[in-house]
Amino acid sequence: MLTLEVSLADRSYPILIGESLLTDATALARRLPSRDLLLVSNTTVGPLYADAVRRALQDRNIVDVRLPDGEQYKSLAYVSRVLDVLVANRFGRDCTVLALGGGVVGDLAGFAAACYQRGVAFAQLPTTLLAQVDSSVGGKTGVNHPGGKNLIGAFHQPVAVFADTATLRSLPARELRAGLAEVVKYGLVFDLTFLEWIERNVDALLGLDPAALAHAIHRSCELKAEVVRRDEREAGDRALLNLGHTFGHAIETATGYTEWLHGEAVATGMVIAADLSARLGMLPASDVQRVRDLLARIGLPVQAPRVGAARALELMGLDKKVKSGRIRLVLLERLGAARFTAEYADDALQSTLATHFG
Amino acid sequence: MLTLEVSLADRSYPILIGESLLTDATALARRLPSRDLLLVSNTTVGPLYADAVRRALQDRNIVDVRLPDGEQYKSLAYVSRVLDVLVANRFGRDCTVLALGGGVVGDLAGFAAACYQRGVAFAQLPTTLLAQVDSSVGGKTGVNHPGGKNLIGAFHQPVAVFADTATLRSLPARELRAGLAEVVKYGLVFDLTFLEWIERNVDALLGLDPAALAHAIHRSCELKAEVVRRDEREAGDRALLNLGHTFGHAIETATGYTEWLHGEAVATGMVIAADLSARLGMLPASDVQRVRDLLARIGLPVQAPRVGAARALELMGLDKKVKSGRIRLVLLERLGAARFTAEYADDALQSTLATHFG
Repeated sequence: MLTLEVSLADRSYPILIGESLLTDATALARRLPSRDLLLVSNTTVGPLYADAVRRALQDRNIVDVRLPDGEQYKSLAYVSRVLDVLVANRFGRDCTVLALGGGVVGDLAGFAAACYQRGVAFAQLPTTLLAQVDSSVGGKTGVNHPGGKNLIGAFHQPVAVFADTATLRSLPARELRAGLAEVVKYGLVFDLTFLEWIERNVDALLGLDPAALAHAIHRSCELKAEVVRRDEREAGDRALLNLGHTFGHAIETATGYTEWLHGEAVATGMVIAADLSARLGMLPASDVQRVRDLLARIGLPVQAPRVGAARALELMGLDKKVKSGRIRLVLLERLGAARFTAEYADDALQSTLATHFG
Repeated sequence: MLTLEVSLADRSYPILIGESLLTDATALARRLPSRDLLLVSNTTVGPLYADAVRRALQDRNIVDVRLPDGEQYKSLAYVSRVLDVLVANRFGRDCTVLALGGGVVGDLAGFAAACYQRGVAFAQLPTTLLAQVDSSVGGKTGVNHPGGKNLIGAFHQPVAVFADTATLRSLPARELRAGLAEVVKYGLVFDLTFLEWIERNVDALLGLDPAALAHAIHRSCELKAEVVRRDEREAGDRALLNLGHTFGHAIETATGYTEWLHGEAVATGMVIAADLSARLGMLPASDVQRVRDLLARIGLPVQAPRVGAARALELMGLDKKVKSGRIRLVLLERLGAARFTAEYADDALQSTLATHFG
């Protein structure tokens, strides 16, 4: 088992990465002292792993909540339902909410924990690669609004993250690939050496090679933990983690959150961000091709839906990376280094959007 | 104009207390740098003061939201409506939410600000005495749940508080009295000298004497700011501010939040807390009578509704001051000093509830 510490003063917490962690009574019990636990999962993941968690924590009072499975249920209405269950069971401030599932469950359950009695403890038990390398680490919680993704939420750090690599065997291949998009992102933004390692290990990762997966998760979490430590509330460097996300959010919003997986939208968004960086003279065109090739090899989409440049720009405008009306973007300075800036030529953005969104 | 600073590292903020602050363009503009402002008020307060605020900040983009007036609208459904307006107007992370009104508006608007894009700035413009001395200071935001008061919320500090004493002239006498209950609370919990000053100045306060009001607000905020500075997240001393509140919440919940004003419930709750303290041998019976007399002179209720001791205990159990099933209470060690504890004889609590709730 690998362990990483996210250092945030009195809100520091460990990330545990390992095979079959969810059945490890010692590891779970030590990090989850509460008597009352709310186990939030969904109708797909709950039947697979909830019983194992129950057995590992058999001396506790565990109440189950199972949400329907899908990004479209990541809404304030379902947060309200989770809160209803907490109230109905008279859980006090000393309870802990467990988020067992992917990013939707983690974001929603974490936000419910942030709001209940102005904040109770919660732990992440991510069962998708995306959640293990990204959404379960860093304390961003929240839900979507019909007008935009993640517009409602809170910063609320978990007390622990348990990334059980065995759960990835039950993950659909498409979701594994979507998770790898975020792994590629860490390489692109922070670490050329890691990017090159990914390029050499695409087949091992897609083949669920345990050592390759463990390294990818560990290095991704390490890079994310470091930037979260420096900038918990996203006042600066943390925004670099949004490479491809502003374009990706436009894709997800345009398609109603149902057709594209988040990681797929981010993959295409990263191609668009690389392209814009090249048009601004920051990146050689060959690097754009290299990014596109890697993502395509993983099996990720690299072509945005043809919703039109104007509509794409409009949808980007509601994204949170807006500072007084001007859209700020994460651009690549080179492979392994990025910049968050509103200083770019508008015509370069326009021509990029025209090329990708048609 | 009096100014107080609430010291909370990077979340420090000023409380400004003075006559006609809401029309003071210089004071408002200096503390509210955002271009986009959401002015949340209700149908009672909005018509009285929103135009003055608009005029004082005439160069800004101000969007109005007016909630129906009443504690029963302090719900997640109305938070959702405020969020809808923020999204519909495409406000970014750099907007500021202004809460113009009493505690309901402040708590709800503050919580909406805490949730929108994981937290945008908000400022309190309290127009009731209760909000000026209590709810607008300290960063507690949130809404009620059908199962209990303030069960959903966040700690989110304002960027500034503007307490305009002129607004108290439009306040119904009953609400002025309810606000004075919290003023008495500060004396009881922290400061016998202040309590004695209140006893000598009841008539001046009820008569809206400006100097008396200003002193009462200033000293109350000073005492609250000091305890919030020591204990922002209510891990310790801050809980002392809840003197009378656990009993008070039971009263409010039993009566559906509509019959009793919060301060009225707290007043009766403080009498009950004083009585329990006396039964535990901490306080002489004459001091219980002194507390009751002062609150009665102010015109506050000192007799709880006869809902029965068992029902009262049940409603207290859902209050947030519960630690692993045991109800913790704020008790008076003497007039001017209090203690937050779960160590008390259960039969004393039972007999106290039987006496007051019947």
